[in-house]
Amino acid sequence: MLYLVGLGLYDEKDISLKGLEALKRADVVYAEFYTARLFGGDLHSLEELTGAEIKVLRREEVEEENRPLQDAVTMDVAFLTAGDPLVATTHTDLLIEARKSGIDVQVVHSSSILSAAPGLAGLQAYKFGKVTTIPRPEENYFPHSPYQVVASNLKMDLHTLALLDIQAHHDYYMTANQGLEYLLKVAQDRGDQLLNEDSLAVVVARAGDTKPLVRADQMGKLVNEDFGGPLHCLIIPGKLHFLEAEALVVLGGAPGEILE
Amino acid sequence: MLYLVGLGLYDEKDISLKGLEALKRADVVYAEFYTARLFGGDLHSLEELTGAEIKVLRREEVEEENRPLQDAVTMDVAFLTAGDPLVATTHTDLLIEARKSGIDVQVVHSSSILSAAPGLAGLQAYKFGKVTTIPRPEENYFPHSPYQVVASNLKMDLHTLALLDIQAHHDYYMTANQGLEYLLKVAQDRGDQLLNEDSLAVVVARAGDTKPLVRADQMGKLVNEDFGGPLHCLIIPGKLHFLEAEALVVLGGAPGEILE
Repeated sequence: MLYLVGLGLYDEKDISLKGLEALKRADVVYAEFYTARLFGGDLHSLEELTGAEIKVLRREEVEEENRPLQDAVTMDVAFLTAGDPLVATTHTDLLIEARKSGIDVQVVHSSSILSAAPGLAGLQAYKFGKVTTIPRPEENYFPHSPYQVVASNLKMDLHTLALLDIQAHHDYYMTANQGLEYLLKVAQDRGDQLLNEDSLAVVVARAGDTKPLVRADQMGKLVNEDFGGPLHCLIIPGKLHFLEAEALVVLGGAPGEILE
Repeated sequence: MLYLVGLGLYDEKDISLKGLEALKRADVVYAEFYTARLFGGDLHSLEELTGAEIKVLRREEVEEENRPLQDAVTMDVAFLTAGDPLVATTHTDLLIEARKSGIDVQVVHSSSILSAAPGLAGLQAYKFGKVTTIPRPEENYFPHSPYQVVASNLKMDLHTLALLDIQAHHDYYMTANQGLEYLLKVAQDRGDQLLNEDSLAVVVARAGDTKPLVRADQMGKLVNEDFGGPLHCLIIPGKLHFLEAEALVVLGGAPGEILE
């Protein structure tokens, strides 16, 4: 039996009661933090709460050695991941492989940035287009695709949730500032005025924390602000309903005049 | 103080530890089940677990009388909702009104169909376009807009998550069959061949349950199947990555030949 358990957004208390029960029931408990991480989190208190010892696996132990899957043939295995357990492709692979091997799987869902960030900003979920992730730029790697997703959504008056690269093995968590710079640089490189320093953006930092940060303003302004610790994400709003505009003022401190 | 607490997808054990603590801490605990409902749920066991008495409010008590907000001026109020607490617009309004009134708000996120359904079907979150909801048709009300969302996404090779109407006060929870019929009827009315009985669709039923149902097949086939109790939702896949196609076969029992 394999339990795929989501730890949720921010700390060890974002796990559900169902997830906690799976931990107590499991013979062995694994976790991975290479696709995402809990920044407010403390796994030790989760260990104390459940009596389970949590072993953190490296990517190769999951994806090459198939540790969770191999153990699940003979034992009850709980595999913990930040956020919802099936948002990262690598966990969906585990689900599929388990099914193909005739191993029972139970998915324990949890909170995810995909549903949390829009709501925290006061924006309506059904007005979002395709989501994108902004990657860490490298010397020969600076894809325009995240910008193109934003542009395509904007042309349909839709909002875009832009997640920011996580490279846990390098302790790299892209900041909202780096994400904003990325998008502005692509716009400049393309000679495109669809996004510029006057464009509206929203920063959501530490979703799931008791005091998450929401800031809405012009990109040129936001790029120089300090949003505190990770994780950050960005929203590039499309056409705003007047209640959404009000939300950005009340929740994100947007100057009212830039929304008119 | 106002705690907006998500109960998550399916039953009373989908609440997070953080949500449970808010319930214990609150002076008064309200819940609403007019925007969504927990079908596996039993609030009594949640009351036993926390010692809190949960009072279920009607829509007018929330939206007209502002009960949660008024009480939060002088007391610690927890307001419980199915799914993530900020996905429904009416809860975002509460958050905004609370902030405007200077009332402290803490959001306790939870699992949502928006992030859970794509993963259960083995489809990649970043390949979804705009989400839509199929409304209950009435004599003079049969909007084509949900179909147009699907069509627009399909033209961009994107998947569509189609939620199905919930009218809790009429004990009406649209089935996947009704949703499929709706889309097929719009296609027919428009004389449009983008969707027809041969088109691929995915049904996800009872997400969050220990044994949720995932079925992928042609719409003409699915429309006559029995998917069991609510809640249901639909996914209309766009262009499939080969791993996604495999997922629909393994997880959803799709006949391999229709995916080629």
